[in-house]
Amino acid sequence: MLKTVDSISRMQTFVKILKKEGRTIGLVPTMGALHEGHLSLMRAAKTHTDVVVVSIFVNPLQFGPSEDFGKYPRDFARDEEMASRVGVDVIFCPKAEEMYPAGYSTYVNVEGLTEGLCGASRPGHFKGVTTVVTKLFSIVKPDIAYFGQKDAQQAFVIRRMVENLNMGIDIKVLPTIREKDGLAISSRNVFLSKEERREATALYVSLKKAESAVRGGEREPRAVIAAIEEVIRECPSAEIDYISIVDTQSLKDVTVIAGEVLIALAVTIGHTRLIDNTIMKV
Amino acid sequence: MLKTVDSISRMQTFVKILKKEGRTIGLVPTMGALHEGHLSLMRAAKTHTDVVVVSIFVNPLQFGPSEDFGKYPRDFARDEEMASRVGVDVIFCPKAEEMYPAGYSTYVNVEGLTEGLCGASRPGHFKGVTTVVTKLFSIVKPDIAYFGQKDAQQAFVIRRMVENLNMGIDIKVLPTIREKDGLAISSRNVFLSKEERREATALYVSLKKAESAVRGGEREPRAVIAAIEEVIRECPSAEIDYISIVDTQSLKDVTVIAGEVLIALAVTIGHTRLIDNTIMKV
Repeated sequence: MLKTVDSISRMQTFVKILKKEGRTIGLVPTMGALHEGHLSLMRAAKTHTDVVVVSIFVNPLQFGPSEDFGKYPRDFARDEEMASRVGVDVIFCPKAEEMYPAGYSTYVNVEGLTEGLCGASRPGHFKGVTTVVTKLFSIVKPDIAYFGQKDAQQAFVIRRMVENLNMGIDIKVLPTIREKDGLAISSRNVFLSKEERREATALYVSLKKAESAVRGGEREPRAVIAAIEEVIRECPSAEIDYISIVDTQSLKDVTVIAGEVLIALAVTIGHTRLIDNTIMKV
Repeated sequence: MLKTVDSISRMQTFVKILKKEGRTIGLVPTMGALHEGHLSLMRAAKTHTDVVVVSIFVNPLQFGPSEDFGKYPRDFARDEEMASRVGVDVIFCPKAEEMYPAGYSTYVNVEGLTEGLCGASRPGHFKGVTTVVTKLFSIVKPDIAYFGQKDAQQAFVIRRMVENLNMGIDIKVLPTIREKDGLAISSRNVFLSKEERREATALYVSLKKAESAVRGGEREPRAVIAAIEEVIRECPSAEIDYISIVDTQSLKDVTVIAGEVLIALAVTIGHTRLIDNTIMKV
């Protein structure tokens, strides 16, 4: 039976009981607008932990002033039904006024990993993410927390934060779930028009082309980036934010493709910013 | 029997056992060089919690480049004996290399409360404090943590952090312990020459004078600050860093003494920076 908890103190009380009973907790932090990507995380949590908590909180702190906080898709009834179907135990959906009361002033920041890639065009975004995730971790006290590989930089940043702050939480990062044509599933895909939706496949196609170039022996980042760019430029509605090949430790651009690299891109199609990525070991 | 733990992972393992046994944990975070102030915190922890942990870690992150990190007093054997005498259960003394491994990049910061008072002359100090305290809290998972009123700004900042990040830890702030002549006990007092030690009493004397001015009806911050200044200026070795009267919610200067105010000062005597304060409700 799915339980909905919308107050921090009630969630804390419930967590105390679970801990006393020795039950393990899996947390899937989301902003709602649940999709197959989220469901795959919940299913994994079901197999690993005794009690699965899904947080639904559209975190104002991680949106820039010109970003889509206001129009971010929200449909709680649908989310509840989806979570219930995969056997989630608790939806934790705190109110913004309780998460960030007047005078709120504490922030967690991972320096170094957050300035490049999405951080460059979304200043403050990752500070918002690490702050809210720290709060959710404090409240829910999960043994394991689940994140999607689609938000690769976010996953690296959270892993680093958990390690640096000795949070003792196991962070599991699960593969990106895709539509049949390869488009990474995202809550923002609903914003795409039919034509934009068709063009959006280019992100996946371009990454596949990059992968085969690297597999074919290409070690020059600029050549691989050019190959990706070529695919994206064929889409009339697409505007490239970045295409980067970075080291997975530092998230800094590599000069030669070697070791483990993240090939990541952000592209705005029409008015919708989409991201995708692939990790390669060479 | 006092147990000494110098590795983070061994501390975490021990904490897991304590939690499983349902035992409550009290944490007294220190930088060593223990004195009566610390002991009063440990004694309180003994009465409130099942297991008392004292952390001893001279945190490099909270010292500025020109500050006294290198010469900060260290005497582990003496600390151990003192802690043992008041019945402390565990000394946790992690190594700096384990607390801040290469590539360390995560920081916790309380904005707003940390820019004034000691924050003005010690930029980065409170960021260092909140970061290390977050780490210690993650590792030790205390039910209650103890701080001294002598470091008033630190106590306010940590309370705010714990509240903002929903850490669910009870923060107890205990009264400043003083020498017979009123000097607030501090690990840094050992740096004072005999003459400086005599002069150092001026901090306490000036605060007493401020208190009686306020009790006498003075509501003008500048008049009270002038009264404090007058006492300090009588000491040839004293240099005033700041004398401030701030609101205890915002830590911003008040224009009129009303409600709850913190009267705080920092004075360098010779080469030793001393702080002291009093909280008044009017």
